[in-house]
Amino acid sequence: MSHTSDSHFDVIVIGAGAVAENVADRIVQGGLTAVVVESELVGGDCSYWACMPSKTLIRSGMALRAAKRLGGAAEAVTGELDVAAVLARRNSFTHDWDDQSQVDWLDGVGIALVRGHGRLTGIREVTVTASDDSTTVLTAEYAVVVCTGSDPMLPDIEGLKDAQPWTPREATSAQSAPASLAIIGGGVVAVEMATAYVSFGTEVTILARSGLLQRQEDFAGDLVSTSLRQLGVDIRKASPTAVEKTAAGFAITVDGQVLEVEKLLVATGRVPRSSDIGLEVVGLKAGDWIEVDDTLKAVGSDWLYAAGDVNHRALLTHQGKYQARATGDVIVARALGKPVDDAPWGTHVATADHQAVPQVAFSEPEVASVGLTSTAAREAGFDVRVVDYELGSIAGASLQADGYEGRARMVVDEKRGVIIGVTFVGQDVSELIQAATIAIVGEVPIDRLWHAVPAYPTMNEIWLRLLETYGRPGAIQPGPATSA
Amino acid sequence: MSHTSDSHFDVIVIGAGAVAENVADRIVQGGLTAVVVESELVGGDCSYWACMPSKTLIRSGMALRAAKRLGGAAEAVTGELDVAAVLARRNSFTHDWDDQSQVDWLDGVGIALVRGHGRLTGIREVTVTASDDSTTVLTAEYAVVVCTGSDPMLPDIEGLKDAQPWTPREATSAQSAPASLAIIGGGVVAVEMATAYVSFGTEVTILARSGLLQRQEDFAGDLVSTSLRQLGVDIRKASPTAVEKTAAGFAITVDGQVLEVEKLLVATGRVPRSSDIGLEVVGLKAGDWIEVDDTLKAVGSDWLYAAGDVNHRALLTHQGKYQARATGDVIVARALGKPVDDAPWGTHVATADHQAVPQVAFSEPEVASVGLTSTAAREAGFDVRVVDYELGSIAGASLQADGYEGRARMVVDEKRGVIIGVTFVGQDVSELIQAATIAIVGEVPIDRLWHAVPAYPTMNEIWLRLLETYGRPGAIQPGPATSA
Repeated sequence: MSHTSDSHFDVIVIGAGAVAENVADRIVQGGLTAVVVESELVGGDCSYWACMPSKTLIRSGMALRAAKRLGGAAEAVTGELDVAAVLARRNSFTHDWDDQSQVDWLDGVGIALVRGHGRLTGIREVTVTASDDSTTVLTAEYAVVVCTGSDPMLPDIEGLKDAQPWTPREATSAQSAPASLAIIGGGVVAVEMATAYVSFGTEVTILARSGLLQRQEDFAGDLVSTSLRQLGVDIRKASPTAVEKTAAGFAITVDGQVLEVEKLLVATGRVPRSSDIGLEVVGLKAGDWIEVDDTLKAVGSDWLYAAGDVNHRALLTHQGKYQARATGDVIVARALGKPVDDAPWGTHVATADHQAVPQVAFSEPEVASVGLTSTAAREAGFDVRVVDYELGSIAGASLQADGYEGRARMVVDEKRGVIIGVTFVGQDVSELIQAATIAIVGEVPIDRLWHAVPAYPTMNEIWLRLLETYGRPGAIQPGPATSA
Repeated sequence: MSHTSDSHFDVIVIGAGAVAENVADRIVQGGLTAVVVESELVGGDCSYWACMPSKTLIRSGMALRAAKRLGGAAEAVTGELDVAAVLARRNSFTHDWDDQSQVDWLDGVGIALVRGHGRLTGIREVTVTASDDSTTVLTAEYAVVVCTGSDPMLPDIEGLKDAQPWTPREATSAQSAPASLAIIGGGVVAVEMATAYVSFGTEVTILARSGLLQRQEDFAGDLVSTSLRQLGVDIRKASPTAVEKTAAGFAITVDGQVLEVEKLLVATGRVPRSSDIGLEVVGLKAGDWIEVDDTLKAVGSDWLYAAGDVNHRALLTHQGKYQARATGDVIVARALGKPVDDAPWGTHVATADHQAVPQVAFSEPEVASVGLTSTAAREAGFDVRVVDYELGSIAGASLQADGYEGRARMVVDEKRGVIIGVTFVGQDVSELIQAATIAIVGEVPIDRLWHAVPAYPTMNEIWLRLLETYGRPGAIQPGPATSA
């Protein structure tokens, strides 16, 4: 049943990042053969230039600030964050950008690797051009999966491209902290890198025309703005009109003034990494996102799949890995003529992409959300009720940090009596969101959630307060308290 | 509909701890009148001598150790935990054992307060004896609710009672750290107080005949033992045979030797605080736990209820508060002739007491669990499958702390395809357990949980690893990986 030669495999995966690895892993676990094609490091952006290094840059400073917010612990923190040690820890997590351990993993599970740039050159055919310009033609028995991810988008600002600013790659792999850093953009990468670098003593300026975290509930951007400003970040609702490389760094024209900084990071969005992978061969347009159905199969094709950023469903590593599991399993099922479970929430579909995508910004404070924001839920036509509660009023939060500030929002679909969106903002909320994801994905009725008792005194008691604020269907509703 | 005079109320609640407050709150929210009877502080043990002070004693040291486990942050922690500042923070959380703010809260929501010792003296009648020995007879139109809680149990050890050891009350309210402390017991209080005091520089010895955390999964006690020993705690599987008060403290005979310590804490279990509340009047035995049905009504009575520790269903503040909500609501419903929803998981029953009680030990490391242990599940006759995974192998955990050690266990009911028990042990796992509680209470099928994607890189990715280890029903099952 499995087909392998030096150049023929059951499945070819273009890319070898986390998503590609998961696709190939499911393929070989299903008994088929797989090859991954990678022009850079096996492990991809997440391992070397995104999730992992960025969180190491943030975590040590975050833990130190947490200790400083507690009587008794604060007194013990007499030194400053050791930036060199943080960077060394980051280097250890990225293995100094050496992918040998991931190559060993591929070998161990039996996934073939061809290094080079892969391009579609025919039906189930990928031609790989190596760094020495030699080419290898690979053919697939069943499917080709595009997992090439995305690239940073550079906005159209005069001089920006020529000035060669930092992208998230350079920001997460820098070997020293600049004296000053300007960040263009207000999304997750912008607030995370601002959080990291301001803790290194860098003078950080954020230039975000529409403010911070615009896709989240309004209070998320507000709380993060307040907090980052307290840490010393200069946040301006402004867009640069010109950028120039100077001897000392960058001269940025913004609001008619010139801002001089040592480094400039552009974090304004992503474009698909699909401009040079032969999409024309299958009738698609080079440089486009690849549209797929819920089994991650490219629309109009019976053998091309796309998982991860490049399909534009949800540009997050964990969501790409989720798609990868469905992709790998459905390719195996179709190849072997086994049942395909492609009903909503089935084994072979990525239904959660539409309804329950969790996201965490590891900023100061953290922002963790899943499902729809209140605005998005209303726009989608749901009969929405919104419940807010201050996290600082929760006993568990007041114990976690003196002067704890944060907020939670629960968005309820009144018609079905289930939660469709939750947002938490505050210190250490990143691990709180999984409970909300399970509630949404499991469509657990509000009535039943009353029985999911939060342990006291944890921050999760926010669940009880949100439910109490919502009111209890079936219970006696609040009436006037009569004590006389 | 509501009945109030100086001595007649719709509902009398004996006790004014967290559980009693929640019962009374639901009663007045439902439009009836309520009085609480309290001989000590309004707010009870949880506010003044248990949950709140114990966690403040633990939290600062925990945060400091977290910082020390991170390159870059560790270098900044050059001082020691400031014990006086920790105790001052604890005093602030207990308002120096002044209950005025809670009295104000009662006033604000319209709950009456009578200070003194309450005893049942007739049908729906409670006689309160004040500290000046004056008495007040209270009568209830509908119900009396016993929320008196529990007292520490002193084991039968020669000389122990006369030696007047610390109970959890004294351990959580101490104004200085003793040079040495022995703890008899191996449960949650024992490991929490060991964690707190060893961080204060106290020489701590635990005497636990059966080891630590015997009601939890085996690995919980093992990991906590290892960790506490690393912090310097002497843990002995031994039971004292005699205790004597000395000038310097206590002389404890154990294993034929004498252990001399400044303080001795006994934390070996609880007894119901019901020996002097007039239970005989309703045909119950003084000093017994009060048996109740799922609406928290005492078996055999139509007007007596018991919520919290005293009913022996689940001796935890959060679970008592959960019972309190059902108790208050069902009393109102019955009084007003409204529908009573007492089917399992209904509004007026405490179903979760049987199936989904979460518990957190804020020890080093934390232990968080919900539902059945693997042993309890097998004993209960479930068709059980147990899945373990090392938390340290999760990317999010390795980022959280260098050298992270911890473990997770998921207990699955194979017949229904749902989770019935989860245990997490490790740094910062206390907030992870709510997701498991929702999965269990919501009876979310394993198939569906695959769609509850954990955000990367958080520690919650343990969910994905547990599921992968379990295997995916409906997906192609792992076969031999064929790469040749």
